[in-house]
Amino acid sequence: MAHVLGQNQYGKAETRLVRITRGGTRHEVKDLSVSVALSGDLDDVHLSGSNANCLPTDTAKNTCYAFAKQYGIGSAEEYGIRLARHFVDDVEPIHRARIRIEEYFWDRIRTPGAQGRFIGSEEVGHSFVRRGSEVRTAEVVWDGSALQVVSGLHGLVVMNSTDSEFWGYIKDRYTTLQEAYDRVLATEVTARWRHSFTGAPGQPEPDWDACWAEVRRHLLEAFAETYSYSLQQTLHAMGIRVLDHVPGVDEIRLQLPNKHHFVVDMAPYGLKNENEVFFAADRPYGLIEGTVHREGTVPVIPVD
Amino acid sequence: MAHVLGQNQYGKAETRLVRITRGGTRHEVKDLSVSVALSGDLDDVHLSGSNANCLPTDTAKNTCYAFAKQYGIGSAEEYGIRLARHFVDDVEPIHRARIRIEEYFWDRIRTPGAQGRFIGSEEVGHSFVRRGSEVRTAEVVWDGSALQVVSGLHGLVVMNSTDSEFWGYIKDRYTTLQEAYDRVLATEVTARWRHSFTGAPGQPEPDWDACWAEVRRHLLEAFAETYSYSLQQTLHAMGIRVLDHVPGVDEIRLQLPNKHHFVVDMAPYGLKNENEVFFAADRPYGLIEGTVHREGTVPVIPVD
Amino acid sequence: MAHVLGQNQYGKAETRLVRITRGGTRHEVKDLSVSVALSGDLDDVHLSGSNANCLPTDTAKNTCYAFAKQYGIGSAEEYGIRLARHFVDDVEPIHRARIRIEEYFWDRIRTPGAQGRFIGSEEVGHSFVRRGSEVRTAEVVWDGSALQVVSGLHGLVVMNSTDSEFWGYIKDRYTTLQEAYDRVLATEVTARWRHSFTGAPGQPEPDWDACWAEVRRHLLEAFAETYSYSLQQTLHAMGIRVLDHVPGVDEIRLQLPNKHHFVVDMAPYGLKNENEVFFAADRPYGLIEGTVHREGTVPVIPVD
Amino acid sequence: MAHVLGQNQYGKAETRLVRITRGGTRHEVKDLSVSVALSGDLDDVHLSGSNANCLPTDTAKNTCYAFAKQYGIGSAEEYGIRLARHFVDDVEPIHRARIRIEEYFWDRIRTPGAQGRFIGSEEVGHSFVRRGSEVRTAEVVWDGSALQVVSGLHGLVVMNSTDSEFWGYIKDRYTTLQEAYDRVLATEVTARWRHSFTGAPGQPEPDWDACWAEVRRHLLEAFAETYSYSLQQTLHAMGIRVLDHVPGVDEIRLQLPNKHHFVVDMAPYGLKNENEVFFAADRPYGLIEGTVHREGTVPVIPVD
Repeated sequence: MAHVLGQNQYGKAETRLVRITRGGTRHEVKDLSVSVALSGDLDDVHLSGSNANCLPTDTAKNTCYAFAKQYGIGSAEEYGIRLARHFVDDVEPIHRARIRIEEYFWDRIRTPGAQGRFIGSEEVGHSFVRRGSEVRTAEVVWDGSALQVVSGLHGLVVMNSTDSEFWGYIKDRYTTLQEAYDRVLATEVTARWRHSFTGAPGQPEPDWDACWAEVRRHLLEAFAETYSYSLQQTLHAMGIRVLDHVPGVDEIRLQLPNKHHFVVDMAPYGLKNENEVFFAADRPYGLIEGTVHREGTVPVIPVD
Repeated sequence: MAHVLGQNQYGKAETRLVRITRGGTRHEVKDLSVSVALSGDLDDVHLSGSNANCLPTDTAKNTCYAFAKQYGIGSAEEYGIRLARHFVDDVEPIHRARIRIEEYFWDRIRTPGAQGRFIGSEEVGHSFVRRGSEVRTAEVVWDGSALQVVSGLHGLVVMNSTDSEFWGYIKDRYTTLQEAYDRVLATEVTARWRHSFTGAPGQPEPDWDACWAEVRRHLLEAFAETYSYSLQQTLHAMGIRVLDHVPGVDEIRLQLPNKHHFVVDMAPYGLKNENEVFFAADRPYGLIEGTVHREGTVPVIPVD
Repeated sequence: MAHVLGQNQYGKAETRLVRITRGGTRHEVKDLSVSVALSGDLDDVHLSGSNANCLPTDTAKNTCYAFAKQYGIGSAEEYGIRLARHFVDDVEPIHRARIRIEEYFWDRIRTPGAQGRFIGSEEVGHSFVRRGSEVRTAEVVWDGSALQVVSGLHGLVVMNSTDSEFWGYIKDRYTTLQEAYDRVLATEVTARWRHSFTGAPGQPEPDWDACWAEVRRHLLEAFAETYSYSLQQTLHAMGIRVLDHVPGVDEIRLQLPNKHHFVVDMAPYGLKNENEVFFAADRPYGLIEGTVHREGTVPVIPVD
Repeated sequence: MAHVLGQNQYGKAETRLVRITRGGTRHEVKDLSVSVALSGDLDDVHLSGSNANCLPTDTAKNTCYAFAKQYGIGSAEEYGIRLARHFVDDVEPIHRARIRIEEYFWDRIRTPGAQGRFIGSEEVGHSFVRRGSEVRTAEVVWDGSALQVVSGLHGLVVMNSTDSEFWGYIKDRYTTLQEAYDRVLATEVTARWRHSFTGAPGQPEPDWDACWAEVRRHLLEAFAETYSYSLQQTLHAMGIRVLDHVPGVDEIRLQLPNKHHFVVDMAPYGLKNENEVFFAADRPYGLIEGTVHREGTVPVIPVD
């Protein structure tokens, strides 16, 4: 039986790039990991060993660095759009480019000396401390006709120490879980949201940084303020909060591992543990995933 | 604007399960990590806080353990099929179940004493050593009408120290890569292949273990025996080798990071490094991905 | 030749413990990983298979949980001291206990609603977000006669985008490094500092939390304010800054990986990279380690 | 109060080096991660910012590569000894060098074609597959007068599915563990052993590779063949087995995490789990550590 080469893509993954902008006494830092995936007229590369249509992944990497110099990095999305357009528009055999970016955050170190001072309302200095494990993500796809921009975050670990219940569920032969009327609810948020912006003529480009900060804020607030009967319900509340408040977002997908905190049974040692001391388990964990989107739009963020 | 709950799924992830079968002097071990994802009539769980249709993830975990006891684990695929069918067929609101399994390998420890001895042609004993980082994977989806079974592996790290070239590629302003006429080619294989088996009446069930071993062998052989002009070409050769030799497989998708080995420039210290000493880089790396499938079949393994 | 059982220790490692204190509308969270190592009269356990002198590691784990309930967790050090004293003072065959603790930080989520509100000067609420990858550490050793308390941190990633040079070093046949008069200096601080406090009668117990915060502040400030000619010099400046400002600390050891940021050479694509765009490398990295201690004290923090 | 610079060391860590030896149709591969730590007359580097005595870590890295070319890598120990001697003997301010090496194993891929064939008794070919997660380690220290060589391994995961008991231990208020008369015993071996060889004149240099293989074999056999009443007892049996059979080893230190396999309680679902199905837990885990050494020798492998 004959066989067919199906979907294929290639590129350079995890190019680690730090861009420093030096404006007198105030330095700025952008810290990214950039992954490029290209598709196009690449059958020969696979079949005949001819690389005539192959832009080396090494060149993709160099281009990431060069564009950071030539155009700066206004935001991850803006930088990703420029890269995606370049590979498709300027490299003939490439018909589709997907740029994935992780951004790591740095805060200024504030010291009584020259660092982290304010001059007027602006903080100056050249010393930074990494904010932590939270990562901003951006994914841009350009196929020559429409942009698709999905922003996101992961590594955002949150916990409610009360206002969470879980009961009234299906019981079968294998059920041993006790119903809970006051439990800890903890998760590590992975979120991706798609912008309605497609780069069509006349469409205004979002303020990517402001939009990202707004979505993050709504996710945190919805998590904190939802009295929860299940992590599914919390997920849904987080999703609709974003859609209700951020007009440019058409779709959001959340992945929420249920990081179990089990109440330690202290009866054997004659103590009563009233929801005070918990065993924080690693594995297994519940995993709750879902998409919320605007009516009339077609969700496109892939399901894992 | 109104919003809609789109695709959603939930379950218990990474249930770590070890099953020991004790047959007199010969013990067998199966070591799995099982992840369950369920979908169905779950809108109320998200919207109203009612859990009446929710099978707790804790019960999903218990079921994994119970089925290992009740039915044993013939192979990851067989065990996954039984679990998937149970959740859909026996739990009314669940309409689709996806079971993902990682399997870790153990070899017998051979000692001059009682362990790892042979009795006739059969090795006996109860002592084992883990084989390494390679992982066998299986994914089963059951929606009540057809099974979809995707077997796979990851963590298989391979290297050719010669018989690899890369030249004749596109050059543009950002190109700095030198053409290579003899380079090291190393990658860590992630492969997934879909079986034509769907559980239809009369369809014979594959011998999952034998099939897995055969696919793995062909992947290794194709990697080793292909004189390579690009990792894309090697990927394609690996894919078609499997389709040509394993009739029950309709589609295979490979993800091959190009683990770069750079020749260290020793001219500054007056030495000539003739493809002998390499810097093995972590990041960035090339990432080559592609699907090969039989003509007339529709590929369904998702693209990352 | 005869052999001897030398140093040995055992215990439960990485007990994950979350303690929630509920004071009306204000909840507090302590999130720890606790590792216990016990030594003593344990030869028989190793030699004869008798466990008569063995306190099971499972009991060590239970004790960690029980003490969190019975006594709370004022600070990691205080909690560790109580545990260490218990194992040695209350379990006859145990003569030495070492408690290692990692503490993970949580901040309150501030929302316009009920969460993270202020009542007077006190912030209330029960919703938290993990601060990031930085970890506070504490190690307590009790041998029945004197306490040894070593506080610390790791995962604190910092960067100076200027005010760092490196030149004037040894050149030999293998040298290729160019001298640098303006470079990025980045590291991930691992620090451990030993307190003069030994629990002797009349000795006041430090305010562990205040002391930890003070040391951390001085480490950050010294890193930011030191004009650096080598990471060794920065390390030394950080160490003496702590000793100069925090009287109860007798010794500090720092491990500072030099997280290299290489200036990308853009000459091949006709661009001039003036210390703007960097490749952030993973491996290899420089590793600078050193102890600074008060004159007249004997350093005891182990060298890796 | 005055302060003192105590122990300090610096160097390049985790230099990833692959050495390929091409002998006609038979290629050999050595795959190492090399970490160098240097000490000496380095006070000025820390105190004054003068780097006159500083050999850059970049040069240490280059030297690792150059020596692999100039002298090959007979074994990790041999290569480490040569590097350590060089830094101390050839670089005036350096008085002590510690070289740590991790070695990763590759097996030949055997195919029916040209790869992995035998020519006479020798297997030929240039295609390799990584053996797995087990790592060989070597640490060499040279201070100008005596060598100290510690070989080792980590990542060796082993399991006995029976022949392990644990009972007769101390019971106190916090004890809940049930005594076990047939349990799974699993661990991930980290072992380091010190050779009596110090490089003194007339002392024969061990056959490092043969010695390493012999120690590994005895560790596995002792683990498999010991009927165990505690992991401590197994640790001791492993240690003395090595000392009894490998004359050139004076001391061995083992770190054995007790990777708990808990019998799943199936009584609630009406099943009897007779030591068949286990939950393999991640954390917490027991951690058993100990040294065994020859009578009359002073153990020097550091205690964690």
